[in-house]
Amino acid sequence: MSSVRPLFVVAGIGNGTGTGAATARLFAKSGYRVALISRGPDYLNKLATELNQAGGEAATFPLKDYTPASIKSAFTSLKSHWPSSPLRVAVFNAGYGVWKPFLDITEDEIRESIDTNILAAFAFARAALLEFTKLEFETANEGGVAGDARKRGTLIFTGATASIRGNTLTSAFSASKFGIRALSQSLAKEFSKQNIHVAHSIIDGTILTDRTKSQHSDDPSWEANQDVRLDPNSIARSYLHLVRQDSSAWTWEIDLRPAHEKW
Amino acid sequence: MSSVRPLFVVAGIGNGTGTGAATARLFAKSGYRVALISRGPDYLNKLATELNQAGGEAATFPLKDYTPASIKSAFTSLKSHWPSSPLRVAVFNAGYGVWKPFLDITEDEIRESIDTNILAAFAFARAALLEFTKLEFETANEGGVAGDARKRGTLIFTGATASIRGNTLTSAFSASKFGIRALSQSLAKEFSKQNIHVAHSIIDGTILTDRTKSQHSDDPSWEANQDVRLDPNSIARSYLHLVRQDSSAWTWEIDLRPAHEKW
Amino acid sequence: MSSVRPLFVVAGIGNGTGTGAATARLFAKSGYRVALISRGPDYLNKLATELNQAGGEAATFPLKDYTPASIKSAFTSLKSHWPSSPLRVAVFNAGYGVWKPFLDITEDEIRESIDTNILAAFAFARAALLEFTKLEFETANEGGVAGDARKRGTLIFTGATASIRGNTLTSAFSASKFGIRALSQSLAKEFSKQNIHVAHSIIDGTILTDRTKSQHSDDPSWEANQDVRLDPNSIARSYLHLVRQDSSAWTWEIDLRPAHEKW
Amino acid sequence: MSSVRPLFVVAGIGNGTGTGAATARLFAKSGYRVALISRGPDYLNKLATELNQAGGEAATFPLKDYTPASIKSAFTSLKSHWPSSPLRVAVFNAGYGVWKPFLDITEDEIRESIDTNILAAFAFARAALLEFTKLEFETANEGGVAGDARKRGTLIFTGATASIRGNTLTSAFSASKFGIRALSQSLAKEFSKQNIHVAHSIIDGTILTDRTKSQHSDDPSWEANQDVRLDPNSIARSYLHLVRQDSSAWTWEIDLRPAHEKW
Repeated sequence: MSSVRPLFVVAGIGNGTGTGAATARLFAKSGYRVALISRGPDYLNKLATELNQAGGEAATFPLKDYTPASIKSAFTSLKSHWPSSPLRVAVFNAGYGVWKPFLDITEDEIRESIDTNILAAFAFARAALLEFTKLEFETANEGGVAGDARKRGTLIFTGATASIRGNTLTSAFSASKFGIRALSQSLAKEFSKQNIHVAHSIIDGTILTDRTKSQHSDDPSWEANQDVRLDPNSIARSYLHLVRQDSSAWTWEIDLRPAHEKW
Repeated sequence: MSSVRPLFVVAGIGNGTGTGAATARLFAKSGYRVALISRGPDYLNKLATELNQAGGEAATFPLKDYTPASIKSAFTSLKSHWPSSPLRVAVFNAGYGVWKPFLDITEDEIRESIDTNILAAFAFARAALLEFTKLEFETANEGGVAGDARKRGTLIFTGATASIRGNTLTSAFSASKFGIRALSQSLAKEFSKQNIHVAHSIIDGTILTDRTKSQHSDDPSWEANQDVRLDPNSIARSYLHLVRQDSSAWTWEIDLRPAHEKW
Repeated sequence: MSSVRPLFVVAGIGNGTGTGAATARLFAKSGYRVALISRGPDYLNKLATELNQAGGEAATFPLKDYTPASIKSAFTSLKSHWPSSPLRVAVFNAGYGVWKPFLDITEDEIRESIDTNILAAFAFARAALLEFTKLEFETANEGGVAGDARKRGTLIFTGATASIRGNTLTSAFSASKFGIRALSQSLAKEFSKQNIHVAHSIIDGTILTDRTKSQHSDDPSWEANQDVRLDPNSIARSYLHLVRQDSSAWTWEIDLRPAHEKW
Repeated sequence: MSSVRPLFVVAGIGNGTGTGAATARLFAKSGYRVALISRGPDYLNKLATELNQAGGEAATFPLKDYTPASIKSAFTSLKSHWPSSPLRVAVFNAGYGVWKPFLDITEDEIRESIDTNILAAFAFARAALLEFTKLEFETANEGGVAGDARKRGTLIFTGATASIRGNTLTSAFSASKFGIRALSQSLAKEFSKQNIHVAHSIIDGTILTDRTKSQHSDDPSWEANQDVRLDPNSIARSYLHLVRQDSSAWTWEIDLRPAHEKW
């Protein structure tokens, strides 16, 4: 029997320097076809080109927004792009954050936070779970995970400090992130019976990206100091570990922070 | 100086037999004018009549829905109804729950859950906090709380087991309730500096209402057995306790369950 | 039938200016006989004299240490002192805190922390529960709680920030306080079926006592500012509220902090 | 420069079929010298023989009890056994569990639970941290972890469901396990600044061991069904993942449970 490459999908690529892109790189290197869902077509194309040049197989599925209809449509496209690849890993990394005093947050900002985070997470989860529930267990010849892991698929949500703690400027953001965490816990309990693994990460610190680098442009040591900011590639390695856990010992929640983070 | 009666507002009255109505009764009896916000005008009117006949002062502010615009409009009406009464207590007790396997929940149900719970809670909080932040501290002649409590107002959110635990049938409901809990924690931290008290309750069991009575119609002992279901009047007493806490010892979160509840 | 005054016992009085003493004062005023257990006989006697002069009935049960044997002996003494009074409320407020870098804490300090906190809490709980389980429900003529509360007794543990969060200097203290919290949750679940109410408080800030006053002697505004430190009398009022909750709506855990506390 | 093999130490081997033994096997295979600390010398010797025959380097350090003195002495022995090996990984897997109604637990059982769990964890942590704090960062030629992980060492505590939830039969056990969790969180915060990684696992289910196999002897499918019980080798793989995390993204807490576990 010929080998079938499994499919990895991630939503939320930003400018291609954060968690979403790093997981795409690591899973591409680990034998997965990679479907990239995000809003910025330029960054998507740049990342796909990079992955394909490095020997991977990546394709882009740009969205104009994170509405349920757009997400559903992206999944339809990626399935028709790779009809024979079983979807095995889905990472929801999208999000919208607003940090403001409560009375300064507008109704539109609240709605955008709720929609881009919670509603999009529901739609993404639905699309991934509809695929997972149709599949048999992963097999060794897929190459992604050892064939005895007894898994149909893995769905990971990227969380934040605001997923577990509301704070003075985070009413809208933490309401959204708490909501995603609740969703992930509910799904973990409901779908584990079908050998579908749902996990949630708490990224409790600042991730090193082009954006956060520029925010620390006055302190060049920040970027260089591995102890103070999260390397997205290190986050990706923990995601790969979650995907490789066999059904006897699954993790629902993992926290990740730099060594020198105060918490 | 003549006495001014303080104002209590509650959103979410249901059919007038649950937590919302019980808090309205207790705060009416404790010297507050009572503003009732809810969707069913008939139940609202019935409860207002009952409170007024018992010597209270109640008025109804029916909503067609829990959109931010409707909530804002209800607050405008209640302020013009009692222009000289300072708003001192606001209880957000509204909500919409759907218990279904994840893949059976429709997009509309998810949106209604998010909107009626989280967005409505944001709008209700905004309207209440805009009032609280305009006020001086409560004074003894208001009658609601002793004059040395150093409070501008108290905002309470009614939560549920699903506020702290996602479960197999509660993805949409717990996402919404987690979101409200995050909001309440964020607001507690942000507004306590202005001596505004924000609290959250976790109602961890079944509340005795007309609806839950009929669900237990095959077991008449259930209604009679105080140990197995929450009496909404007992919940109301804990809410009054929260309102009476002075600024040296405020509670953010309180759990409430029947003695014989398994948890 | 003649009235029987119920019995309140508290362990941990310190120098008579903190939570233990404040609860003793409030429960004495609320109709309870008050048994005071603590290590300092002088402070105990001073507090008992104060309570008795104010019309209460207080007696002292000094301990040389918080070993299980000493605690058991104190309960034997208080039962023989008031043989006909049903024990209805027990507050464990004792404790020993050490704040040091981990490698500086001695083996003796760790053991004293574990013993004075956890082992003493177990022994205190045992002595109180052995009494509670022998009793019928409280009745109205006891005067402590309304006769329909369906309670045999209430056991409250005083916790701290360190009960829910370990921190850099609190390894020994938080290990002890986490342990007490686990005990209280286990007992709440086990004994609620017998209508015994077990609760836990999280005191998340600095309590105003003689000791903390002297630590803030450079800032006289601290003592005067109700918003920045916990008044032990306010804590006591929340404890009385817990005791008065009827069996339809019991609280296991309540947090208490000053309005301006950062958390 | 010649390579130096790093040292792994684990306390708590039981009969050699559980988590402690599985981590020993995996770290031996991953290039660590393995120091085995436990109470049963026969099981220790059997495991050491197995590891040595498989090409590893293992040595036994039997204890008569888990007192601080015994633990300290075991570390002295293992340091003199391998004076040039840097201690890089320490796993505290010892423990004593008693599941009984609260009033049936004896004072001796409470003390043994507290001592064997909490006091032993403190002593083990002290001994490991005294070593870690003396070391430079791990280097690539040690073979254990890539040389850029910026770590002095990793200390892992094995927890359980009872680490985060007290329950009806677990007062003594959960008090002990909550205590260890508090210790691990305190140490994680204190020592991460020195690039020492402290982690805590929550094993939320039944581990497949000789003992649990015999408890399920009426149901042979249990052992075979990877979805219902934790494979200790899978737990060990997650521990190795924690050890390999670089300092930009450390996990403090990870939960592990079988796919079909109800939680």
